[in-house]
Amino acid sequence: VRARLDRADLDAVLDEALVCHLAVVVAGAPTVLPTTFGRDGDTLYLHGSPAARLLGAAAAGPVCVAVTLLDGVVYARTARNFSANYRSAVIYGTPVVVTEPAVKRHALSVIVEHVAPGSWDYVGRPTDRDLAAVAVLALDLTDASVKVRAGDPADSAAAAGDHIWAGVLPRARSWGMPVPAADLADDVALPDHIRTRTR
Amino acid sequence: VRARLDRADLDAVLDEALVCHLAVVVAGAPTVLPTTFGRDGDTLYLHGSPAARLLGAAAAGPVCVAVTLLDGVVYARTARNFSANYRSAVIYGTPVVVTEPAVKRHALSVIVEHVAPGSWDYVGRPTDRDLAAVAVLALDLTDASVKVRAGDPADSAAAAGDHIWAGVLPRARSWGMPVPAADLADDVALPDHIRTRTR
Repeated sequence: VRARLDRADLDAVLDEALVCHLAVVVAGAPTVLPTTFGRDGDTLYLHGSPAARLLGAAAAGPVCVAVTLLDGVVYARTARNFSANYRSAVIYGTPVVVTEPAVKRHALSVIVEHVAPGSWDYVGRPTDRDLAAVAVLALDLTDASVKVRAGDPADSAAAAGDHIWAGVLPRARSWGMPVPAADLADDVALPDHIRTRTR
Repeated sequence: VRARLDRADLDAVLDEALVCHLAVVVAGAPTVLPTTFGRDGDTLYLHGSPAARLLGAAAAGPVCVAVTLLDGVVYARTARNFSANYRSAVIYGTPVVVTEPAVKRHALSVIVEHVAPGSWDYVGRPTDRDLAAVAVLALDLTDASVKVRAGDPADSAAAAGDHIWAGVLPRARSWGMPVPAADLADDVALPDHIRTRTR
């Protein structure tokens, strides 16, 4: 495992992952929940219901956000050296609540484009009422780090015996066949940005 | 989204996922990191280096563990209703440090069998020195909940217009081709428990 400080590595992890884990402190105890997000430059955007307890806690104090990509399982020759190959970003900071309508609209576009690339222009702009129904937080990426574990298990054939298979079983992610909503009209074609989605 | 209290749902999420996110509080601020784990009955086992800051903090106070399975992206007809389908377990508690050698050995077997099913018997038992080099925590699953979001977007064709494609793009996970360690001898065959792995 090695920590990487290169900003490009941080962006690569954030841009590839679809879900982050947001941790807050409530009454001295930690709470962590998964949520979607988006990144624009040096800012991570999070959104949710204005009534959500987690977002309220996140806006009131320090948070930690982890974004993890599991790349494979590491088969070692000794039980204690089994591990996972992964790329993981961790961000510390205190989010700012986004209230200015233009910025909020932009933040929502960043999140939608991250979760579902090509969708912002396709579905049309949210109304002011739509925007009011969403709480958006902005978290600066200044205090962030990336860790990467890649490659072979830590134990060697020389030390642990060479009759045991050791190596990595890679983990892959892919998209399945799109499932239309139950109330989708028959004449609505699947648009290209969904049909050809790769990331 | 609905919360499920059924214990079988909790077990299903924990047993399918390979990574959890462990959140602790250090000096009043949250920290969350990904780690592997295992489950045996009502106990979640975590392990790591005895020197790891995170494990020390976890042993000293309350933790929160989130286990998340992303099942798909929800394409809505309005920007604010884009979402993710997922199954998520969240566990609260204060872990116990496992020190009794037999229990520690068992916990390590549970973690190894979770990360790499079939490997515990294949690689042979860890030595006492191996065990001493690992810190193991046990977290009771009593205070846990499961949330599941499945199915169509929240906005209807009637309310949002029926000319926009809406539905779900499912997310799938799979294993790639095994990559042997660089120092693996040519005559070591890939064992069945790795070759045929599904979960």
